[in-house]
Amino acid sequence: MEFPSKLIENAVGELSRLPGIGKKTALRLALHLLKAETDTTASLAEALAKMRFEIRYCDTCHNISDTPECAICANQLRDQSTVCVVSDIRDVIAIENTAQYQGMYHVLGGVISPIEGIGPADLTIDSLLERVTKEGSEIREVILAISPTMEGDTTAFYLSRKLRDLPEVHVSSIARGIPMGGELEYADEITLGRSIVERQRQARQ
Amino acid sequence: MEFPSKLIENAVGELSRLPGIGKKTALRLALHLLKAETDTTASLAEALAKMRFEIRYCDTCHNISDTPECAICANQLRDQSTVCVVSDIRDVIAIENTAQYQGMYHVLGGVISPIEGIGPADLTIDSLLERVTKEGSEIREVILAISPTMEGDTTAFYLSRKLRDLPEVHVSSIARGIPMGGELEYADEITLGRSIVERQRQARQ
Repeated sequence: MEFPSKLIENAVGELSRLPGIGKKTALRLALHLLKAETDTTASLAEALAKMRFEIRYCDTCHNISDTPECAICANQLRDQSTVCVVSDIRDVIAIENTAQYQGMYHVLGGVISPIEGIGPADLTIDSLLERVTKEGSEIREVILAISPTMEGDTTAFYLSRKLRDLPEVHVSSIARGIPMGGELEYADEITLGRSIVERQRQARQ
Repeated sequence: MEFPSKLIENAVGELSRLPGIGKKTALRLALHLLKAETDTTASLAEALAKMRFEIRYCDTCHNISDTPECAICANQLRDQSTVCVVSDIRDVIAIENTAQYQGMYHVLGGVISPIEGIGPADLTIDSLLERVTKEGSEIREVILAISPTMEGDTTAFYLSRKLRDLPEVHVSSIARGIPMGGELEYADEITLGRSIVERQRQARQ
């Protein structure tokens, strides 16, 4: 694609480096910004730069935070005895949105992936072990809420091994099974198989 | 959706004001930028701001340009007697990409749309008429290449009326019909009907 202006070409080039945005979408976004008030572009550019340069991570759980301790870690009303281990900040947002969990979090910052060159040392695993084992730790349960991909399972397995020698800490995983509203016939064999093996007895009414 | 950081919330808010980008996509883009080098965000923000604040439009054809006269208007090898009228800069890029047109352009900056409050005076119609009628104008044909929507047709009709009193200038429209590779049975009735009425005789071989 040839552009009538280097300025547009640069903007389209930068926008199309974002995931899921191709040249055509990037051009549409650039032309939208050109049609809108200059303020729109100014505040977008400022919000992005400010976010990237001023973002902090919680010292304890490594979640995104504007302060050294994030709002979840600072909240004394939450259950300090349970830690939910997730790979990504997005997972924290997703679980918080369910309003079903009142404990703490620990964000690994990814999953173990030899292909991408990500080993245990690149994640916040040491920080998790320190949290769990340190003097006076209240943590009694570690929930592994990691996506059931190959890399995710490897990471969960690695963590279970590291945590199994701590007798006072239970390790659990989020439930696997047929999603709500999911059709049995469309579920993959492994999910369906596991959902039968790990069936749950209903309470008598 | 609740965000753990105001900085992210702002960035997601700004990104999701872009067309076709919802909250979830905006969050994915923001987290991508957070994972990437700070340079990525810095150069994106700079390219957007630079584009918006430094963009110029060609004085003659109103196409985007880094100089007062765009590369197309400045190119003396192009056919100065033909002007292709389009609503948008994107249309110029699209037509240039076909490499089938060697004439000049005129970018209206939109189409007449009473619902959106866009009248003829909001477009570059006066500038087009001035170009066509001014002393020593070489323009002999005006091609209306405006999308066949209701607003587009209104705009084309308005332009034809304005141009019809100039005996030395022909007005034409881009051909309508079944697109290349298009299946007849899926074409809408109006397109199919017009493509029969406006059929083109083949040369004898």
